[in-house]
Amino acid sequence: MAEKKIGRRTFLRRAAVGAAASSVFGPVYAQTTRRVRWQMATSWPKSLDTIYGATLLLGRRVAELTGGRFTIEVHPAGELVRPLEILPAVQKGTVPIGHTAAYYYTKLHPALAIATALPFGLTARQQNAWLEHGGTELLNKELFEAFGLLALPAGNTALQMGGWFRFPVDRAADFRGLRMRIPGLGGEVLRRIGVKTVTLPGNEILPALEAGDLDATEWVGPYDDEKLGFYKVATYYYYPGWWEPGPTLHLVINRRAYERLPREYREALVSAARDANAWSLAAYDRKNPEALTRLLANGVQLRPFPQDFLKLAFREAENLYAELASEDATYRKIFNDWNKNRTLLFRWFSTNEASYADFAFRLF
Amino acid sequence: MAEKKIGRRTFLRRAAVGAAASSVFGPVYAQTTRRVRWQMATSWPKSLDTIYGATLLLGRRVAELTGGRFTIEVHPAGELVRPLEILPAVQKGTVPIGHTAAYYYTKLHPALAIATALPFGLTARQQNAWLEHGGTELLNKELFEAFGLLALPAGNTALQMGGWFRFPVDRAADFRGLRMRIPGLGGEVLRRIGVKTVTLPGNEILPALEAGDLDATEWVGPYDDEKLGFYKVATYYYYPGWWEPGPTLHLVINRRAYERLPREYREALVSAARDANAWSLAAYDRKNPEALTRLLANGVQLRPFPQDFLKLAFREAENLYAELASEDATYRKIFNDWNKNRTLLFRWFSTNEASYADFAFRLF
Repeated sequence: MAEKKIGRRTFLRRAAVGAAASSVFGPVYAQTTRRVRWQMATSWPKSLDTIYGATLLLGRRVAELTGGRFTIEVHPAGELVRPLEILPAVQKGTVPIGHTAAYYYTKLHPALAIATALPFGLTARQQNAWLEHGGTELLNKELFEAFGLLALPAGNTALQMGGWFRFPVDRAADFRGLRMRIPGLGGEVLRRIGVKTVTLPGNEILPALEAGDLDATEWVGPYDDEKLGFYKVATYYYYPGWWEPGPTLHLVINRRAYERLPREYREALVSAARDANAWSLAAYDRKNPEALTRLLANGVQLRPFPQDFLKLAFREAENLYAELASEDATYRKIFNDWNKNRTLLFRWFSTNEASYADFAFRLF
Repeated sequence: MAEKKIGRRTFLRRAAVGAAASSVFGPVYAQTTRRVRWQMATSWPKSLDTIYGATLLLGRRVAELTGGRFTIEVHPAGELVRPLEILPAVQKGTVPIGHTAAYYYTKLHPALAIATALPFGLTARQQNAWLEHGGTELLNKELFEAFGLLALPAGNTALQMGGWFRFPVDRAADFRGLRMRIPGLGGEVLRRIGVKTVTLPGNEILPALEAGDLDATEWVGPYDDEKLGFYKVATYYYYPGWWEPGPTLHLVINRRAYERLPREYREALVSAARDANAWSLAAYDRKNPEALTRLLANGVQLRPFPQDFLKLAFREAENLYAELASEDATYRKIFNDWNKNRTLLFRWFSTNEASYADFAFRLF
């Protein structure tokens, strides 16, 4: 087609006229002057500056997008609500909004884990592909709505590391009897292959390692792990953290509160959540390499998990999903959709992306 | 810390009071009633529904975030501006905003290619990590500002495929004398290793293959390639498309026009660009696997490029970057920052993410 040329001066004049004459040329949409101030409870201590930083970004974006008329004051873990009680607090309306990981609440429903991450599940990019194109809609319809919640992806830590071990683990049999700090479904899988799993909050892990009460622990990845100092006691750093291949953190919003918001403020929340989702993954990808370089300079031994251990863990994870699916129709419906996507995405990523990674990532 | 419990009724009452009394409790920020209507020129035909779809999403998000007061009418390639002239048109103010790939304009400055993709460069996630945490700021300061532009990442096609060949290529020597449609820096690298490169628009490629005037062509990936029907003539489908490992498409905005916008509208553009960036990558990741399944069912032969070809191409690409860096200080500054990030990111991704991919992606 032909190019329609408009000179620069013409354009700038038109833009100025359009602006000045807006009330003449067309209807201006109903505009809100309401000022809304929300408090947000989160599961994160301020020291996790990547995840907590994503919640601060989210709050800032909402204010920027609404000219400061809709503000969200972000609170770290425990300040408004206990860190693992965000979802029920937002459900009850104690706070209108929260930032947390859905898999903390599997006692409320086992399918909540699928919203965050499953062992041997989707990487961050695959998770975003599923959530953005069908997954988030499905999870809200089948799961979060029943809690009176709207849940939006709003953070990702990237594939986590396998964790810190006081001695090498060379084969699957070495894991039997091992005392390891690991919560959630990863912990359940490890329990089934003989690991003595323990759940401990972040600040109690290093003392337990130092006292010899723990043989191993997982946490997040190089950047977050470095701050907690595990490397001083447990020098073998294993990968990959197959139990959390690309965990999604969620913004959970009380539906009644959400529906009372002016439309523009709802849209601001949607975009601010996407901003936080992209920013946090990029932050981990950008900060982990430098942290790992520092850790290696401190004598950390970086090692891959043994293959027979991965195979055994994968079998147990699949058994666990089959059990959960047989027990609950909602779990079955969400898992089957997720699993269909996993098969397609894994096959596709095993060709093009994997072959590029094989060649390029080892060039330097 | 102690949990501060507020009952649900109390919260809802407070929220309602807060809303009703907004004008009493605090200052409401200056609010714009301006109506702004922009035309956006893009490089994309409507048939590229992933990329063009991302520009439509971008326009819709801007309207949703501003209550319909700021609207952007999106135009496909050629309707307002010729597809490869978007950047100069926005620079001149012919249109205030455009969506394009910066590497189309390397004749204006060779460093524009770095904003999109370099051969053997960053994958989509690595590209986002770099751009989000320093890269976009650097590119704007050192490069786009000189054109009077603000450029925001607003789309990604994911790693592209190597393309369609009429016969197998088993070693680097098989590429000598091959007639291949491939533009840009990838084409320049291939030219240096003996390929006779050709630049042709999308609609002329299939006829040239059918007439025997071309031996091979690249385009994008399974989803986009399928529509153009190359598989009917050239049945060998090679990967990876190392010349475009995670190309970023940009929203380019005329700075003078941008600075005249009310602050909220500027912020809406920033979030809408991020929405499009995330959505398009997820769309490609979600749609490519199903397209590849269909192509394989149609007899397509999927093959990895030979290793000696990859090695030779990598050496030539590095030579090319060294030449460009020696000739231009701006190129050198941007390339060095990008290259430092590439080294860090490749090393990190070669451990954790690569080992998970090696094990997990081949499970199904």
